[in-house]
Amino acid sequence: LTSEPQLFAGTYARGRVADVFTASSWLQAMLDAEAALARACAAEGFMPASAAEAIAAVCDARRFDVSAIALEAGAHATPVLPLVSLLRAQVTAEVAEYVHLGATSQDILDTAAMLLTRRGLDAILDDGDSVLRGCAELARKHRDTPMCGRTLLQQALPTSFGLRAAGWMVGVREALAAVRDVRARQLAVQMGGPVGARSPAIARRVAAELQLAEPALPWQAVRVRVGALAGALGVLCGVLAKLARDVTLLAQNEVGEVSEGGGGGGSSAMSHKHNPVAAVSVLACAKRVPGLVATLLAAMEQEHERAAGGWQAEWGTLAELVTLTGSATSWSAHLVEHLQVDATRMRENLKRLTDIGAQGDLAAASELIERALDTEDSP
Amino acid sequence: LTSEPQLFAGTYARGRVADVFTASSWLQAMLDAEAALARACAAEGFMPASAAEAIAAVCDARRFDVSAIALEAGAHATPVLPLVSLLRAQVTAEVAEYVHLGATSQDILDTAAMLLTRRGLDAILDDGDSVLRGCAELARKHRDTPMCGRTLLQQALPTSFGLRAAGWMVGVREALAAVRDVRARQLAVQMGGPVGARSPAIARRVAAELQLAEPALPWQAVRVRVGALAGALGVLCGVLAKLARDVTLLAQNEVGEVSEGGGGGGSSAMSHKHNPVAAVSVLACAKRVPGLVATLLAAMEQEHERAAGGWQAEWGTLAELVTLTGSATSWSAHLVEHLQVDATRMRENLKRLTDIGAQGDLAAASELIERALDTEDSP
Amino acid sequence: LTSEPQLFAGTYARGRVADVFTASSWLQAMLDAEAALARACAAEGFMPASAAEAIAAVCDARRFDVSAIALEAGAHATPVLPLVSLLRAQVTAEVAEYVHLGATSQDILDTAAMLLTRRGLDAILDDGDSVLRGCAELARKHRDTPMCGRTLLQQALPTSFGLRAAGWMVGVREALAAVRDVRARQLAVQMGGPVGARSPAIARRVAAELQLAEPALPWQAVRVRVGALAGALGVLCGVLAKLARDVTLLAQNEVGEVSEGGGGGGSSAMSHKHNPVAAVSVLACAKRVPGLVATLLAAMEQEHERAAGGWQAEWGTLAELVTLTGSATSWSAHLVEHLQVDATRMRENLKRLTDIGAQGDLAAASELIERALDTEDSP
Amino acid sequence: LTSEPQLFAGTYARGRVADVFTASSWLQAMLDAEAALARACAAEGFMPASAAEAIAAVCDARRFDVSAIALEAGAHATPVLPLVSLLRAQVTAEVAEYVHLGATSQDILDTAAMLLTRRGLDAILDDGDSVLRGCAELARKHRDTPMCGRTLLQQALPTSFGLRAAGWMVGVREALAAVRDVRARQLAVQMGGPVGARSPAIARRVAAELQLAEPALPWQAVRVRVGALAGALGVLCGVLAKLARDVTLLAQNEVGEVSEGGGGGGSSAMSHKHNPVAAVSVLACAKRVPGLVATLLAAMEQEHERAAGGWQAEWGTLAELVTLTGSATSWSAHLVEHLQVDATRMRENLKRLTDIGAQGDLAAASELIERALDTEDSP
Repeated sequence: LTSEPQLFAGTYARGRVADVFTASSWLQAMLDAEAALARACAAEGFMPASAAEAIAAVCDARRFDVSAIALEAGAHATPVLPLVSLLRAQVTAEVAEYVHLGATSQDILDTAAMLLTRRGLDAILDDGDSVLRGCAELARKHRDTPMCGRTLLQQALPTSFGLRAAGWMVGVREALAAVRDVRARQLAVQMGGPVGARSPAIARRVAAELQLAEPALPWQAVRVRVGALAGALGVLCGVLAKLARDVTLLAQNEVGEVSEGGGGGGSSAMSHKHNPVAAVSVLACAKRVPGLVATLLAAMEQEHERAAGGWQAEWGTLAELVTLTGSATSWSAHLVEHLQVDATRMRENLKRLTDIGAQGDLAAASELIERALDTEDSP
Repeated sequence: LTSEPQLFAGTYARGRVADVFTASSWLQAMLDAEAALARACAAEGFMPASAAEAIAAVCDARRFDVSAIALEAGAHATPVLPLVSLLRAQVTAEVAEYVHLGATSQDILDTAAMLLTRRGLDAILDDGDSVLRGCAELARKHRDTPMCGRTLLQQALPTSFGLRAAGWMVGVREALAAVRDVRARQLAVQMGGPVGARSPAIARRVAAELQLAEPALPWQAVRVRVGALAGALGVLCGVLAKLARDVTLLAQNEVGEVSEGGGGGGSSAMSHKHNPVAAVSVLACAKRVPGLVATLLAAMEQEHERAAGGWQAEWGTLAELVTLTGSATSWSAHLVEHLQVDATRMRENLKRLTDIGAQGDLAAASELIERALDTEDSP
Repeated sequence: LTSEPQLFAGTYARGRVADVFTASSWLQAMLDAEAALARACAAEGFMPASAAEAIAAVCDARRFDVSAIALEAGAHATPVLPLVSLLRAQVTAEVAEYVHLGATSQDILDTAAMLLTRRGLDAILDDGDSVLRGCAELARKHRDTPMCGRTLLQQALPTSFGLRAAGWMVGVREALAAVRDVRARQLAVQMGGPVGARSPAIARRVAAELQLAEPALPWQAVRVRVGALAGALGVLCGVLAKLARDVTLLAQNEVGEVSEGGGGGGSSAMSHKHNPVAAVSVLACAKRVPGLVATLLAAMEQEHERAAGGWQAEWGTLAELVTLTGSATSWSAHLVEHLQVDATRMRENLKRLTDIGAQGDLAAASELIERALDTEDSP
Repeated sequence: LTSEPQLFAGTYARGRVADVFTASSWLQAMLDAEAALARACAAEGFMPASAAEAIAAVCDARRFDVSAIALEAGAHATPVLPLVSLLRAQVTAEVAEYVHLGATSQDILDTAAMLLTRRGLDAILDDGDSVLRGCAELARKHRDTPMCGRTLLQQALPTSFGLRAAGWMVGVREALAAVRDVRARQLAVQMGGPVGARSPAIARRVAAELQLAEPALPWQAVRVRVGALAGALGVLCGVLAKLARDVTLLAQNEVGEVSEGGGGGGSSAMSHKHNPVAAVSVLACAKRVPGLVATLLAAMEQEHERAAGGWQAEWGTLAELVTLTGSATSWSAHLVEHLQVDATRMRENLKRLTDIGAQGDLAAASELIERALDTEDSP
């Protein structure tokens, strides 16, 4: 089994999301689910507390050979089956029979996916806050910096760069609010047993231990949570792409109104070039996302109590989606933090518009910026 | 210009959404935006009240030749330009100069799109409530109707049909809650003027008159609202597709556990067939949706103050998305309302599982159903 | 049933594709399939020649109420069932029994779809040839017009505008070759009867009469043809989007190297603006296409002898895809035909690069252009 | 930098594609491009032959630290820049100046991507041939095995299992023909230099050495080749999904007409279950593909001489697309090779249809199968 770094991780997996969905992260998250399950079963009287503790004690990824699990997972279309075998082998025969008690592969894998997704969203939300702060600072600083407003890529009327930055900020703020909502409400435990008909007591205890939401019902083939997550991340990437697209356009030599600071941007052939690497990286990530969202939405058409194909298509897609969104957010934070703004060039570029008497309402722009900066969390 | 019915409207545009996005609906919505704009301008002192009323008085789609507007719209990549010309021609020369005051095409078109989307969402939410009621009734009635639980399309363990229906219900309920939230918060007026720098007073008044949300800032090229709408509808269609897929599978002759009532379903060649037309129609609509969601998310990468392509790609996509979702919801309501359940066949199909001693926890299933029916609006 | 023009047809349905997929076009194409089927059955001895001619004689869309068919189609998830009823009513009782002989809905609808698609592809190929000619002319005329080469939206090294145009030309040429190949080989008759097991003699005769390809087997649930069509149109739209994106960028006021001629481009609020309407319209259409391609590819997962959902999702998607591609092609033809090139501005914009000594190999560029112009149809 | 196996590789990366797009494979392919470039430059007289050989001699991935390259790649949005630095450090200062002569990052990365894609396509074509053989064998063996034809998931008329298998075969054959065509014509060298204006002599020599196609022009921002590849793989996955979907449906306990042999398929909770693991794995891969195709098509909108985002989005997407398609093909080969067909159950399931007198034309089915088996490569 190949074990290699990702060559393009610097582009597609910047920041804390880089190691959220590694094989050993998945493994530990599945083990966390098994441990929580064991404790819940003990608390409900289905196994001795000592068995639960014996199980929990060995739920440490470092005790397992992740390559061996990966190698065998394909034959069963799930890594949980080989994991459970190895887990049983780590405890006494007596305890072994309590491992994975009443659970099904999907319980463990879905719960693990939610744990990893939460780590991913935490990174996204933190970096997203940095993007917000950066945009807010740009909006404040350039509240009165006049700039060409451009529609259909043609100079239209004067506006201010502060209003542009405030627009980014409001968009990112709204998108992050939706991600935050998903984090709070959609990341739920899965503990329904083979056909989703397990008494909710176990799910409730596992949810409490892992600090995941407790679902109204097992959601094995009702994937609203995955779809909602996909939608929220898709929207966030969409607004980050808008921001990054603007930067690439404003950074054109012929426009020259912004440039990327923060290092990087050299060219293998042309030393005079300064490439907008951060903006390009945001766009590279964000452009990959709508297709992934569509995949997850289309995969919601899941059969009966567990899908034949639709569920299994989620695993890799979800990991890519969260990782790419995290990378886009991290790159965006870097981008806005280091953005160089050339107010002089902005004024020069306005000359054509002012020469023909085109007027903008900069007082209104300023009022709008002020209001946007004051508003809290109101989409 | 072709003026024809849609041949496949019965499949793709069932119910109230059918005429939400017609040319004359768009026209009236754009006129509603112009009328509200005029009144807002008057209230703010930018035009005489009499001018506003003169404008509002002619903002009636029946006074306009929609074909003429459509014919000319292409040359400008917007129907607003020809509409404004015709609107000016309907009033005195003095009043004409107040028409469309300070506004831009996008103000009118975006606001109109939000008005039409609201009508679409209202239809979706109403039909969605019918789906919910139908699922709840099935869940109640079949709380103790045992059925094979099936995973990966293989018989797994006994469950109840009531739990399956409760699963549909919870999924639809969660998805509708998100649509309801979008309706309340994301459908905002657009009144930013050419570059989005217009004083918010006008937007506030127009929002109040049209009962749309007032945005923190004009959102001309920051399309979080469109993306959020797309995500919510994509998730709703995903869960409806799950429901409909289950029905097609349970309605197979070899399974025979449900069938569609409510008429329809004949075959042009085989009189002995009874086709699951409603379920097929839900799937036909729902399968078209993830691609549309991806289109709208990808189109969020919009340039500067108005996009060159991304915005214009939204118009038709949004209309398709809302219409298809509305049709899927309407067909789903019909489906669950008329669904015939064959509890005897369900019991017969269980025989293989019970023969081998596979046991399900129907008491737990019943407890779960009860809880799901009790829960209100909790995703 | 709503019967209205499409408000955005000028953007989304420019040129000959506009009326390819109207309800009456569909109706006539379905009738053409029924007529050809009748003649084939007669030739094979399954019905009297007189019956076939009686059927063919009434296969004229003007004899049918398309709204009535549309109204009833939804209840059966196919318009063929009501059409066949009405067709039978147009002939004597004796002849009526021969109508639709041995056929199934899908035979008629798929064959009709291929007939309409052919009309759409013919329009696309003709307009595509205009794009090619326009690009070739630009490449010839500007073989030695120096221009900034730009990478990552930064000025890189000198190149020529002729090479850029030659690049567009080669891309469009390759994409059109694939569309031409699809037109020749993938547009096949469907005449397999209810489960695709009809003797191929009928299909062969219908194919000959309608000049469609004869398939190796009925392709009712094996949708390679639809997928191949989708792929080819997706690629064509992709390359047209590249061309149009370049135009929007080169037409920026700050760059000013090209502008759109050919009228249009006014603004509802700013008389000084000249919008790149054709390029924007190409982009508006092209951006809607990848999602449609994904829908058709995902819908290929079709069950047994006819799909429950996947097939029915194709109808509207296919029509949109062909129409949007046709519109993008028509707008592109308009665009390149009227493109204004400002060679002086190109030289001025080069000054920064030449000042720093950046050198381009214009002789090589010229050689490449020459070669590209000479090459015929070689992807 | 994380270096780990892929936990889900058994599902998503079965067979030879598993290690096509690893970091060290990329690295070696980029080095192969650099070596071929050096030799081409020497042959054209731009560097001494000894320099070319000195460069080629060190173009061995084992001499490089791939993690170091990956670590630095993100800062430049390309791994080529750090690679070239390290490559220069491996040769004498005199030779170092000839490394990467006249080339740009994209030359190396695009050429490497084509080399890796070719390896991927070779695996896909080989496994695809196994699928073809397996389907042909099933078609031959079951030419006269009667089976229910099913439309809209309802029993329709008798057909034969052989005809079903022949349908799979023809679909796969057509799809593979398109992949083969892409392999022969679309996998072209990229050697255009910074702005695509390099004399074609270099590209011609590199193409000859690497046995890639020589393009009419550099295709840096004209991505027809990538789009065509995406379309062909999308169609192949679509038809494999059809095959796998059929298997999951026929393998339902209530239908019982086929089952998967070849081991695997156990359940972590239910020992009586036999899961259709191969079919599920095909579907898991295939469902991820349409979204990736859409991403690559949407990314074709590339700016000027090198895109800011669209190109960089391709890298990971292309790798996923080829790998998932390869896995789907490998799983499909396994599936058809080991498929167990229960002709008795097929006959039993037909009873309902024959009882009501529904008749199929098995002679026609047999004729069709014969013809499909005879036809060679004719889409």
